[in-house]
Formats: sequence, structure tokens, C-alpha cells
Amino acid sequence: MNATSLPRLNALANALEFTDRHLGPDAAQRSEMLSYLGLESIEQLIDQTVPEAIRLEQPLALADGKSEAQVLEYLGQVADKNQVNKSYIGSGYYNCRVPNVILRNVLENPGWYTAYTPYQPEIAQGRLEALLNFQQMVMDLTGMDLANASMLDEATAAAEAMALCKRSNRKKSNLFLVSDQVHPQTIDVIKTRAEYFGFEILVGDIDTLLDEQDAFGILVQYPTTEGNVVDIKPLIDRAHEKKALVSVAADLLSLVLLQSPGELDADVVFGSAQRFGVPMGFGGPHAAFFATREKYKRSTPGRIIGQSIDSKGAPALRMAMQTREQHIRREKATSNICTAQALLANMAGFYAIYHGPEGLKRIAERVHRLTTILAKGLIERDITLAHDNWFDTLTLVVGRQQEAIAKRGYHAGINLRLVGDDKLGISLDETTSAADIEQLWEVILGVGHGLDIDLYDSALSAGSSDGIPAELRRTSEFLTHPVFNSYHSETEMLRYLKRLENKDFSLTHGMIPLGSCTMKLNASAQMIPLSWPQFANIHPFAPRDQVQGYMQLIDELEAMLVEVTGYDKVSMQPNSGAQGEYAGLLAIRKYQESIGEGHRDICLIPSSAHGTNPASAAMAAMKVVVVECDEQGNVDIDDLKAQAEAHKDDLSCLMITYPSTHGVYEEGIKQICDIVHDNGGQVYMDGANMNAQVGLSKPGLIGSDVSHLNLHKTFAIPHGGGGPGMGPIGVKSHLAPFLPNHAVSPIEGPLASMGAVSATPFGSASILTISWAYCALLGAQGLQKSTEVAILNANYLTEKLSAHYPILYRGRNDRVAHECIVDIRPLKEASGISEEDIAKRLMDFGFHAPTMSFPVAGTLMVEPTESESKAELDRFIEAMLTIREEIRQVQEGELDADNNPLKNAPHTQADIVAAEWDRPYSREQAVFPVPSLKNSKFWPSSNRIDNVYGDRNFICSCPSIDSYRD
Amino acid sequence: MNATSLPRLNALANALEFTDRHLGPDAAQRSEMLSYLGLESIEQLIDQTVPEAIRLEQPLALADGKSEAQVLEYLGQVADKNQVNKSYIGSGYYNCRVPNVILRNVLENPGWYTAYTPYQPEIAQGRLEALLNFQQMVMDLTGMDLANASMLDEATAAAEAMALCKRSNRKKSNLFLVSDQVHPQTIDVIKTRAEYFGFEILVGDIDTLLDEQDAFGILVQYPTTEGNVVDIKPLIDRAHEKKALVSVAADLLSLVLLQSPGELDADVVFGSAQRFGVPMGFGGPHAAFFATREKYKRSTPGRIIGQSIDSKGAPALRMAMQTREQHIRREKATSNICTAQALLANMAGFYAIYHGPEGLKRIAERVHRLTTILAKGLIERDITLAHDNWFDTLTLVVGRQQEAIAKRGYHAGINLRLVGDDKLGISLDETTSAADIEQLWEVILGVGHGLDIDLYDSALSAGSSDGIPAELRRTSEFLTHPVFNSYHSETEMLRYLKRLENKDFSLTHGMIPLGSCTMKLNASAQMIPLSWPQFANIHPFAPRDQVQGYMQLIDELEAMLVEVTGYDKVSMQPNSGAQGEYAGLLAIRKYQESIGEGHRDICLIPSSAHGTNPASAAMAAMKVVVVECDEQGNVDIDDLKAQAEAHKDDLSCLMITYPSTHGVYEEGIKQICDIVHDNGGQVYMDGANMNAQVGLSKPGLIGSDVSHLNLHKTFAIPHGGGGPGMGPIGVKSHLAPFLPNHAVSPIEGPLASMGAVSATPFGSASILTISWAYCALLGAQGLQKSTEVAILNANYLTEKLSAHYPILYRGRNDRVAHECIVDIRPLKEASGISEEDIAKRLMDFGFHAPTMSFPVAGTLMVEPTESESKAELDRFIEAMLTIREEIRQVQEGELDADNNPLKNAPHTQADIVAAEWDRPYSREQAVFPVPSLKNSKFWPSSNRIDNVYGDRNFICSCPSIDSYRD
Repeated sequence: MNATSLPRLNALANALEFTDRHLGPDAAQRSEMLSYLGLESIEQLIDQTVPEAIRLEQPLALADGKSEAQVLEYLGQVADKNQVNKSYIGSGYYNCRVPNVILRNVLENPGWYTAYTPYQPEIAQGRLEALLNFQQMVMDLTGMDLANASMLDEATAAAEAMALCKRSNRKKSNLFLVSDQVHPQTIDVIKTRAEYFGFEILVGDIDTLLDEQDAFGILVQYPTTEGNVVDIKPLIDRAHEKKALVSVAADLLSLVLLQSPGELDADVVFGSAQRFGVPMGFGGPHAAFFATREKYKRSTPGRIIGQSIDSKGAPALRMAMQTREQHIRREKATSNICTAQALLANMAGFYAIYHGPEGLKRIAERVHRLTTILAKGLIERDITLAHDNWFDTLTLVVGRQQEAIAKRGYHAGINLRLVGDDKLGISLDETTSAADIEQLWEVILGVGHGLDIDLYDSALSAGSSDGIPAELRRTSEFLTHPVFNSYHSETEMLRYLKRLENKDFSLTHGMIPLGSCTMKLNASAQMIPLSWPQFANIHPFAPRDQVQGYMQLIDELEAMLVEVTGYDKVSMQPNSGAQGEYAGLLAIRKYQESIGEGHRDICLIPSSAHGTNPASAAMAAMKVVVVECDEQGNVDIDDLKAQAEAHKDDLSCLMITYPSTHGVYEEGIKQICDIVHDNGGQVYMDGANMNAQVGLSKPGLIGSDVSHLNLHKTFAIPHGGGGPGMGPIGVKSHLAPFLPNHAVSPIEGPLASMGAVSATPFGSASILTISWAYCALLGAQGLQKSTEVAILNANYLTEKLSAHYPILYRGRNDRVAHECIVDIRPLKEASGISEEDIAKRLMDFGFHAPTMSFPVAGTLMVEPTESESKAELDRFIEAMLTIREEIRQVQEGELDADNNPLKNAPHTQADIVAAEWDRPYSREQAVFPVPSLKNSKFWPSSNRIDNVYGDRNFICSCPSIDSYRD
Repeated sequence: MNATSLPRLNALANALEFTDRHLGPDAAQRSEMLSYLGLESIEQLIDQTVPEAIRLEQPLALADGKSEAQVLEYLGQVADKNQVNKSYIGSGYYNCRVPNVILRNVLENPGWYTAYTPYQPEIAQGRLEALLNFQQMVMDLTGMDLANASMLDEATAAAEAMALCKRSNRKKSNLFLVSDQVHPQTIDVIKTRAEYFGFEILVGDIDTLLDEQDAFGILVQYPTTEGNVVDIKPLIDRAHEKKALVSVAADLLSLVLLQSPGELDADVVFGSAQRFGVPMGFGGPHAAFFATREKYKRSTPGRIIGQSIDSKGAPALRMAMQTREQHIRREKATSNICTAQALLANMAGFYAIYHGPEGLKRIAERVHRLTTILAKGLIERDITLAHDNWFDTLTLVVGRQQEAIAKRGYHAGINLRLVGDDKLGISLDETTSAADIEQLWEVILGVGHGLDIDLYDSALSAGSSDGIPAELRRTSEFLTHPVFNSYHSETEMLRYLKRLENKDFSLTHGMIPLGSCTMKLNASAQMIPLSWPQFANIHPFAPRDQVQGYMQLIDELEAMLVEVTGYDKVSMQPNSGAQGEYAGLLAIRKYQESIGEGHRDICLIPSSAHGTNPASAAMAAMKVVVVECDEQGNVDIDDLKAQAEAHKDDLSCLMITYPSTHGVYEEGIKQICDIVHDNGGQVYMDGANMNAQVGLSKPGLIGSDVSHLNLHKTFAIPHGGGGPGMGPIGVKSHLAPFLPNHAVSPIEGPLASMGAVSATPFGSASILTISWAYCALLGAQGLQKSTEVAILNANYLTEKLSAHYPILYRGRNDRVAHECIVDIRPLKEASGISEEDIAKRLMDFGFHAPTMSFPVAGTLMVEPTESESKAELDRFIEAMLTIREEIRQVQEGELDADNNPLKNAPHTQADIVAAEWDRPYSREQAVFPVPSLKNSKFWPSSNRIDNVYGDRNFICSCPSIDSYRD
């Protein structure tokens, strides 16, 4: 063959290689699907679907897509710009050892990280059990009655604790007292949150404050941020006498050795579980924990995993009181939290399981002993310690030596904490070695003035006291449940992890077509850098000159997101979508205050909105005014106009999702934005559906002022089985000065900031690597193509289903955007089969259910994303059509109305093993309704789970060993 | 609490932390088990079990165990001593991109790497399908009728090809002709192998040789080692005219563009599949491939996966003709191969599946185009190329410039191949970029003399020819099977990998109690360094000063193995146990030749030996004389003595396994060694059972002269579902000069070497990291403890089972070593239930079968290893006792003799889904015979598979798409 017929190098280089890997259908399949839709090209589909007025005139001004190897090489260079100093900064973030068996088989395993939030418990018993273990661990260590399944971070957990204290206290006081010995970032977030709750915050010596003030609640840190170990029982008793509730921010590892706050009568105990085997990652993601008393269970924020039973009476787990999430109390909301940190909570729980109580004791004792040795040496050399007691943290009063010692530390590759301008903090952790102590002595005392650790180690053994007052030593047992005492060998641990993993449906098994959740590919290449030590082992408050890699990554990601959204500035701080909403609304408020319009407090929200929107508005002290939708599901522009004009003087903003939560590109969106602006308001565009905009339109272009971006949807951060998420916000320039900032680690730019909304300046910074890699891999063309294929997949599915199921809303030319709503109400009317029956029956076919009854009750919302192949879409269509035929049989009396495969779904192994089979359909129809399942079947591990029973018989701890035997 | 009661730092440091993770039972469980055995301590057990005469008097002189973090940190420093230059060395090893989805979900996934060889096909359909895909890929690309499921490396595959040519050719000739254009390491191994086969090897210009000589076979490389692309059809035709068979060593990627050797009438085609997505790893592990004609299928070495049916007639895969492995034709053996490279073959097959034919074409075209561009530029600048045609490799005739150019290359971070003393080789690969070509020009032509690739790229498009003669361009299709055309998106690929993984039983599911296979924990920390680029991306022939990290690793591992074995020297070259045996015997022969006793050729082998032993002996041209065993299964010392004395003049050696293959520490082992030595022989101690010696005894101490060590058994390299393995040999100093060496990359030490036995100097060097980490993590104490606990576990199991099953052999005090043989023959006699029925029934309980009918027909050999917990042992005992009760029911007529849970085992989902259930036992008893299975069930995916049918209807290609539809 002659070379003339060969493509040139560029063509052979295959610039779109990753894009082709990311997209489900290949070019041939896309043609087939287009031709089924009667279309000749994907451009034609987009022209038919997306309103011309909002289309981009130019492609995105981003680089071309890169290969996986190029991206990993580049990110490797970026990573090398981070300097991994040994951190003694503490303040809630500690070096730790991620057990390798957990690292490999949980954090790096798509079986764990690609699962969705366990809303469908029958196919989620694995991570539900893992989260229950986490709760049990928290309850044991804190000594509290119940714990939730994790919070975003310690500081937002503090804000939730404050809100709980207020909700649970009938007192009129709006005053909340905060010890000045609480971590400063926590105080920062509390102040932000308190402002629009109308709470007054006083920070100071907590004993004095409590004596002098009448508050609804107080907050202390245990041990204190400076490391002091104080008996807080007298304080708690006094607070209770004064009818104030007590929140305690606690360090989980210290509780292994200290009396638990629960034993000391605290009302709420929260903190970070990071040091239980989750890397610091320059701020996250980590799981915070939150524990409280039985009597406050209905006020507990976040998700709680509870026991219930399935339809056969077998024990089964599920999210207790989960309906709160979709139906957050709108106007009265003091929390908008949805996303948790499931993956990280599970890692922390597994860490406790792997070490067990004895292992944790050994770790804690060792950390404490090293701290004591360090302290004794320093005291002997006349260094003044700020406190006489300690667990793992010492605060040294060094006066003008502060800078010199810190500098010696940096040169030695270690970071100390600067406390005020005359003190230094040193926090030890499970990675601290004896040699580290000797190095610390030399850094603090000066070269050549070091000490010998062996001398101090033996001296200590001879009888001196350590840093924990005898009366505060823990005597109660913890982690006594068998799960914490059975899996200490790596083999047993591995098998336990695999057993749980294999109960859970994840993207490794099949499509998770959840409308509005965008369960797309989380590519391996995007996940790999997360484990690199230069990203994993960085303290969030490390000096900025040591984190130049992270700064570059964040700047570059911001630039890409600015280009994608049409905004001027992006803040990475919000570590969930709901956090982003909240921060976005605060930016609006702060801006309006700055121009003398602080009274504006009306927030217009279409009736179709996600429950988080009004909750966020309420948290920002806005009054929600609902705007009606028309029959096509679009915002009723006349009503909008009427409401906007009626509230012209007080209008703060509109919150709107685009494409709409109905999965449609509303034609009037620009007009909608104009109406709001004309009436003095700002437009908040919820970024939940950005996957239908990227490369085709931009919120900033449409006319919005601010959006949050769910990086865990559109930008490929995996859902982790219920978190982490990331919700950065993009804003137009007039809002930029009001973006979040950070008291401990200030951010350049937001000069008139709202304060901090998260514990760390850049949220869960380490997973920004994933979204960065996603954008870099796809590049301008790949990002746009992804959106186009997402729309193609949705329209293909819609057309295929529409002959058999009514599709609720459509846009121009009868097209849908990136998702569609299948209306089950008429079928239910006719057959008694509900959307839930269909959702559960889909499990028998090896699918996760679509979104159920959101945004419209009685419907299923299906979002295939661009990553699902035509084969998988066809498999889903086959399932839906087979189900439709089953419904017909019920409808026409061929199948019993109650005893049929739909009502009995999902079916388990136990069902078909039973000797008796008294159903009017076969075992085969039950579990292999289509033949392809015989080659590969995902088995639900429970029959349909009874939520009502579970809420009535609320148990959120691990089941007793007897119940295991059942 | 006062610090006086606290343990000191050392105690808190937990030096045995990893040991505790590695061992299954913890201290409390060990006590329980000991007390069940009527023992007070594990020392007492060891005293009772291991003959005093062979016990170590001192603990191993090795360092203490280290923590996982310490080991990874240290290995990181070792890794950094390797310099990762860009390799253009070629010679069968190329840079490549491991697709990240395969890296993460296969190579780094215990679900894939901890599986055993698929001897039990009902629970191995996943990797059987993957290996079948590999075979199909090889058949397609080579154009041959059948392919095996991988070989150890290209050079040993060449030796196997030579042996096949001889076996399949009735000609008397012992002459084998080898082109001097074959890779030199291949020639090296062929020469070694030929010596004791009695073949004559002539290396030279193959056309001339063929004209002049009368040979049974010839070997050529295609393209040649210097990169030339020659039409070999005329040569093949001429060879066939002369009744010589033709073996072709082929490059897999080149075959995408070149006419396949099959189309050119070759008889055997083999080569390396490394560049299909497997890292070079300083030599391995990689899969070699081996393809031949239908008519030679019974002569094909290694494992072949073939289609068959199960007991219900459903299609199912299994290893075809597998019995060859356990029953290798002893005296006539020309191959002793057992282990393959399953994990790496699967990776290569997945690489082809992920890229598909179009993707591979693009890769090959691009490599070729870059090579052509490089060539055109060089030619224009008057550099002489050795050949006018090429695929990816150029050989430059540079005369005295050789050294200077190579040096410029090193300085630029690139390695070129030195060919002779006047030529340089450059091989490009899929990682080569346009910038690399410009750098190569500059290195070759001198700084400032570079060229612009764009010019050449456009010039080429204007009509010049490339490096492949038009008549050699491939026109035939390949990889047309759907499996190569369905999984090109990462999502689809991931799900395919998971689907296959989930069909396979591995250590992630439960115990694999295979006697003599030592399926212990493969710890995550041991596996992690394998993926590091400083270990992964090193060419085996990289200059030694660039691989100082590897050299240190190998030296340190050797030192540890020397201490553990009591030998003086270890060669890492043999890349499987069988290779090690062969190399060990050659060392004996060479030594005996060196002292004028080359005539010694009698090899004594006890009747209990593994089939590999006599096969290895035959390959070393030894005559096997069988030594009888007594009733207790021990070597009959009188018979040994008689045989040794009878063969006194010709006695070369004894091959013996210790503890014996019967799982017993023979008391007479020292005496046995003495008898052999007294009669002029050497002792070869098979290292298969080293797991029962480490830290308690040493082969060198017992009196052996040489052993191979199965690093994939005792030293924690995972079995990979059927390879990789590593079989280094330890020798006493008198044998050291005769250890393997290497023609391309010489090793210091073996001055009178046997030559090379593997393609690379240190075998599959990259997985030595695993064994190094294993030893470093456990340290002296942990290694010894592991052996002790392995013995404890085996004895606990033995005692528990012995009340219900006869145990065949025991040693002193009725103890067994690290495994035991359960005798099924009396039960079979009484009930008709065979050892196979029990093995298959164990699958229903979630266990892999023990070793079946080895070393004694009609038995099961059980080896629990030290890593299995008491809970898992108890679960196994429960299964065996439940089975015993089922046997009793059959025996007593309570269950039908043929239609019972044992004869029908294993049971599948399809079994219990069937509407009809006409068996005299329940569905529940079939699949949930014990209640714990309801919480976690591993499902066999086929009913019992019919081996005879498969061998009669031999098909080793992928099933047609129609059969998929069935």
C-alpha cells in the first residue's frame, strides 16, 4: 500500500480518543439512533432541541482534548509543585495511614465509588451496613444515643449543631455562645451561618460567657483547639441549669482515651472522622460525624441509616426518615443538607473495623505517649506550655521566637501551627515516629540542642504522669459489637469489603438512569491522581508557597469553568450542591446590601423546583414566593411577571433550574431573566442540569448572575454511594467580591466576603483533580459532544418509550433535553401499578430505578447521560417494554392485581429457593424476565423494604449479634 | 491513669502489626485451636511436628518486620534509584500504554489477581472466557488454527516451538536451524534447551543454512530482530519441500499491518504479547503466545482453553486436555511447562478488546508512519539503514559513531539498542510522539542538526512509499468476533470486566485450600509498588547503571532467600517453578560435567512426586528411576539406598519434595540426603512446600544442594488466575558458577553458566517487589510465625475432619505438616461418591475445591495456609461435615445414588429457577446447604462440565455469535 492513502500523523494521533471512551454510543450507533429519530446529524437534533436564542455562537475557547497519558503526565508535574511537608498543624486535620486494603478496595474501587445514594435499599445493603457501622462507631466513641451517616465537614456540622440547639430549645434567646478554644475555621462558618438565621454569636472564654449570658446553646471543643484536656462536665451541668443545650466538637481519636462527651452529658457531639484513615487532601473530602440524644432524633440533620424489615419480615437497612430530603421543610428550613460523605464515612468506619478497639487504643496511646514525651522534654528545657494537660496537641508559648522556630521547621520539612503571634501548636498523629520527636526537639530547641527520646521513654515508665487527668480517662468500653472484632486480618477484611460491595448496585453493573443526577462515567484516569501523595497528604492550612500545585490546579479549573459557564469568577469552597446554593444566595444578599438594597428578601421559585432551593432561600432569610408552571411544565411567564412586579421593591432573586427540572429547554428563559432583572432581582440558576448546557449554552450568556455547579454530576466526580460532592459557584463580576473567604487561610479576591461556608478555603480540594482531568481529557470538542450525545441518548430513549408510556413534558419540536419524565399516573389509575412498583421491578432486570416522583409525583424521571451505550439503552427499553406488558396483564386481569411480578418486586434468591411457589407467574419470570439476565444477574439482597415500619421502630445502631443469627 | 502502667514506645509501635494482618487466626483463636489439639503452645506443636534433627538452632538472621508504611517508603526510595529512560531498545520489549480501566480493574484488582488456575471451570468461566479471547486474538493476528492460553516468555516459547517441530516431524535429523536475525536472547535460550535434548543448533543466514543443511525445523523472526520486513513465504515453501517445519517468532503489533505467518504457511507462530498493554517491568511478567496448526494440537505445549458443555448441555469453557499437566509424559517429556501467564494474557486480550481492530490499526499505522518519517529524515541526511523495509524498527549503520550517538541518547534520557559494534537499533511504539522523532533526529544527527517532522509528514502524504512492501501488506480481516467490537467505551469495558470477574471464585470470596499451592494472602501493600513507573517502565536490557534500584532489590531479596533457605546463592532467572526445576537440574549436570562426571544421568524420584519432576529430569536428559514409598507415604529408605547404590556410578541426583507431597515431615530426610551424597549424587529439593519450612528449617541445612522456590506460593506472589509465577533457584556454592546467565545482559557470577533459561536475566523481575515486600513486612519473626500458624491451621483442620474422614498420612505424633490428604476411596467404595463429587459440592458451599487426586488418586489434599482465619476453617469444616452427612444418606439409601446433591453439584441459578424440581432434596438444600450462605452466596455459573465432550469436540476459538444467542 502506498503511503499516500494513509492519514497524516494528526489523524492517527486520535485527539478524540478519550471522548470516544467517554461516550457510550460510537459513531455508527449514533447514526443509527439519529436515523431512528428521523435525523441526519446530531447538529440537526441540537438545532431542533436547544432554543436558538441561547446557543453559543462560538465553540468553547478551551484546549483540545488530551490523551489519558498526557493528562496524567501533566497532572504529575502539577502535583510535584506541591511540597509534602510533615504536618503538625492539627486543627482538625491529621496525617494518617489509609490501610492499604481499604485504599485499594474502597477508595480506588469503582464498585464502591460509582454507587449512588442508597435511596433504593434493596440493592444497597452493602453500603447501608457500612454506614450503619460508621454510625455505631460514632455512637460508641461519643457516648451518644444516635449518630447520622456523616456530614460535609466539622465546621458545617457545627452550624447544624447550632441550628439543632435552637430548634430543640423552646427558649426565646437567639444567642449562641462559642468558646474561643474552638477551631477558628469552625467559628468562621458558624458566624456566616448565624447571620441570616438571626442568631447572635459571642466568642470568648466560655465559662465567663455562660455566667454572664442567657443563650439557647453553647459550643466547646474537646480537647480544645490548643490541645488542652479540660473536664467539661461542670460546664455542661451549668449550661443545662441555664436551659442551654451543649454542643461539643470532639476529636474522634482522643475519645478512645477520654471520657466521652456523652458520659459528660453533652446534647450534640460532632467532629471530623478524617484521621480515621482518610487522607487530608488539602481539605477533603472527609466525613464529619454528628451524634445526639434520642429525643432530638427528628431534629437531626442529614441522613440516618436505620433498621427496618422487608416485605417478608426479614431485617433490612434503609435510610431512615429519608423523605425529609426531598421534602425539606421549605420556609422553616434551618438545614438544606442533602449530600453526605458516604464514601469517606465508610472508609472511616472500615478503619475502625480493621483496627478494632484494641488497635485504636494502641494508636491513641502511642500518639499520647509521644506527645507526653515531647512535652516532658520541652518542659525540662524551659519551654512554656500553654496548658498542663494534653492528648496529642501541645501549644508552646514562645513569644518572639515564633517566626524563627516556624522557619526552622519549614527548612526541616515540617509545618507547625502558628497560634496568635506568640504561640506554636504541635499536633501529633498515628504517623509520628520517635525520630520525629527528636527532630521536633531540635527544631524547637535549636540545632545541637536535641534530646534523646529513649531517656524520656524510660523516665516516663518510671512513674511520671501523662497529659490526661486521671478522672478524664475513659473507662467505658467501645466498639464491642462483633463487626469491630472480626475483621482484623487482611484476608477477612478484604472478604468483608467484597461481600458488602457485591450487595450494591453500582455503575459497574449497569445504567443508573437517575433523572437530575447525571450518573456518567467516572473514568479511571480521572480517579488515579487522587491517590498521589502530593495531592493526598497536604494539610488544608499548609503555607500557600507549599501548595503551588494545588493553586495552579484550582486556577486552571476555575478558568475552564468560567469559560464553560460564562461567569467571571468561581469559588471552589462549597463542598456540596446545597452548600453552593446557600453560598450563591448569600453572595446575592451581600451584594444587595452593598448597594443599599439589603431589604430585598423575596426569592421567587418555580413550583417545579427541587426542595433544596426553598430550603436554601430560607437559610438565607429569604421569603419564598412560588411561581406557577403551565401545563407544559414551563414557568408561567405571566405569573412570574406578576409576582416579580408585585414584589418589585423587595425582590431579591429568582432561583431557576435550566434546562428545567422537567427536562425541557424552556424557550422563555432569557425573557425570564430579563423580567427578574427589570424588577431589581438577581437570577440564581441551579446548576443541577448543566450537563445539558456545556458547550451549547452558558448560564452567564442566558442572563444568570450566579450558579452552583454539581461537580459530582456534570464534571465526573463519582457519587461515592452518597457523597462526596462538590458545589463550586460561578458568579458575574458584580458578585465576585462577596464570594466565600476563609479566616485561617485567606483567599485573594473576595474583599467583602460573606465569610466561610466550609471548613476549608477550597472545599474538598483533592477531588477537584477529577473535574480538572475530566475537562482536560475532553477538551472543547469533547465537552460539547458529551452534551450532544446526552441529549441524543435522552431523545432516543424518549421516542422508544413513548409508544408505550406517556412522556410528560417536551420542548420545541417535541424534543426533550437530557432527561425525560415518564408519567405513570394514567397507568396506575388503570392498573394499580405504581411508579414504585416499576422502580422495584427494574431491579429484577439489573437496573437502578430512575428518579421517582420528582419533580412530579407519580412519575419516573430518566437521565441516561452520554456515557451509556446504545446496547445499554436498548436493554433498558427492553426492560421497560417487558414491564409494560406485565402491567397490561395486570390491567386486563391476566395477572392478579396484588400477587404479580410488579407488586412483589424486587425478587431475591430466597424467593426462588423457597420450596413453595404459589404465585401466578413462574420463578423464571420473577428473576430472569429477559434471557440476557441468565448470563449476568445482579441480585437484590432484600425484598421490598418497609420504610414506615423502620421509622416507627427507629434503630440506627448495629443489630445485636442475636439478630445476625436469625 | 498513671503512665507507669502504660507500655513503652516499642510495645506501642507494634512491630508485628503486619504479621497480625497476614495471619488468619489471632492470638485468642490460636489459643483456642491449640487447646482443641491438647496443646499449650505453638512451640509444643512444632516440637511435636517437625523432626528435631532439621530444626534451626537460631531464629532467621533477618531484620524485624516493618510496617506497611515503612516498607512502601523504603521501596519508594529503591524505586527512585531506577532511571526511567525512554526506551527504543525493542528486541521484543516495548513501551506501551496500559489502559487505565484495565490497570485499575484487572492488574490492581484482587478479584482478578488472587484467583487460581481455572482447574475448576464451573467457578472460573470469567477468566476462561478472557483467556479464550486471548487465544482468538492470537489466532486472528497470526492466522493460525489454534493458540494456547499463553507461555512464559518469547524465548521459552521458541524452545517449545523447537520441541514441537521435533515431536511433529518423523525425520531423523536432530538439527534445528535458527536465523541470525532472531532476537539474541531467544537464541540463547534455544541453545540451552537444545543441549540436553541432543539437538544441534546452527545459527546463521537462514537462506544459506536451509540450502545447505537437512533440519527438522527452522526458526525465523518476523519482522527480523533488526526490523527488516522480509517475505518469508519462499523460505517457508522451501523448508516444507525439505520436510522441515517452520517456526516464526512474530511481533503481534506488526501483524496488524503485515500478512500473517499463517497466511504464509508457517507451522508454529509465537512471540510476546507484552506490548498489548502490559508494562515491560524490567523483564516481566508478560504473556508469550503460541499458535500452531490443527494437526499439531496434541503436541501443543501449555494450556489450551476449549469449549465444552455442562451436565445440562449448556456451553461452557474449560482447560482442554488439562490432564497433561498432572500427568506429563514422564520419560519422553520435551516440556515441563505448567504455569502460564494468565493474568497478563488476560490483560493483553482486554487491550485488544478495548482497542478493537480499528484501534489497533490506528496504533500500528501511527507507529509505522513515525518509523517511516524517522527513516526518511535519516536517509536524507545520509545515514545508512541496514534494511530497506521496516515496520517499527530501524537499524542504523553508524560505524564508529555508535558509542557517541548512544551516549548523546543517554544524556537526552533515551536508550538506543547497540547492535554489534557498528550499528544502532531504534524501535518505536505506541507511546512515541512526533516530538520524540525530532529528538531522535537531533540525538543521531547532532545538536542543531534536527529536522522538522511536519515537513516529512506532509512530504509523505504526497506520495512516497513506506516501509512495508506492498505484497506484504495485510489484507485479511482480524478480530471480527463481536467481543472485539463491543466494549470500546470505558463504561462498557468496565462492565465486561466486572461481569467476568464476578463469575470467578477468588481469594476475595473465600478459602482456596489447594494442597501444595499455598493460596495465602497477597497483601495490598505488597502489590502496590508493581504499578509504580520506576518499576513498571524499565526495559529488561536497560543499561545496568540505570537500574540500580532493581539491582538493590534483587540483591536484597537474594540475601533474604539465602538466609531462609540456607543456600549460598540464588538465581532469579527462572520465571516459573517448572523452569526452576529445569535450571536446577542443569546446574547439577554442568557441575558434574565440570568435575568430569558428566556421564551421571540417573535421577531418583519418589513415586509420590509431582509430574513436573520427571518431566524436568527428562528435559535434562536424565533417566528417571522411581523410588518406592512405604505405607506411611514416606520414601522407602531401603529402596532408596538400594537404587542409589545400584546406580552409584551414574547417579546424578535425587529430586525430593520436603515436607513430602504427602504433607508430612519425613524423619529420614537427612539420611536420605546422605545416601544420595554417599553415592555421588546431588540432592534437588523441590521448593513447592517451602511454606512448611521457612523459619523452622532450611533445605541447605537439611542437606540439599539446590531448590527452586515458588515465589507465587510461599512468598506471596498472587496466582493471577493461572500465572504469573516465579521460580528462582537457590544453590550451594559448588553449583553457583553454573547458574543461568544471559547473553544480552550478562550477570556477574555464573562463569560456567548453563546459558539462559528465560528471556531476561532476572525473569519476571517486577513481581520480585512482591516477595521482597512480603519478607520485609514479616521479618524474621513474622516469617517463622507464618509457618507455625500454617502448621497449626493444617493440624486443627486435620483433627476436626479426622473423626469423619480418614486422613491418609501423618508424621510423628500423628501430626501433619502444612496440609493433609483426606482419603475419599473408602467412602467412594461404600457410597459411590467420589472425590470429584465432593470437590464440586464444595462449590455450593462457597469454597474452591482442594487439590484433587494428587498426589494420590481418590483423595483430596487440603492446605489452609496461615492466612485463613479460624472462622473460615470452621466454615470449611462445617461444609465437609455437612457433605459427610449427605454421603451417609447416600450410603444408607436415604438419598438416591445418582440423583443427589453431591452427584448433581455444583448447582446453579438456572437449576433452582426451573419450574420443575424433581429431585429428592430441596432447592434450599441444593444451594443454601448451610444458613450462612444466605447472607453471601458465590454462584457457580455452570453445572458440572464435561471434559471428555470438550476434548472430543475440540474448539479453542470464541464461540460464534449465534451460540451466544442460545
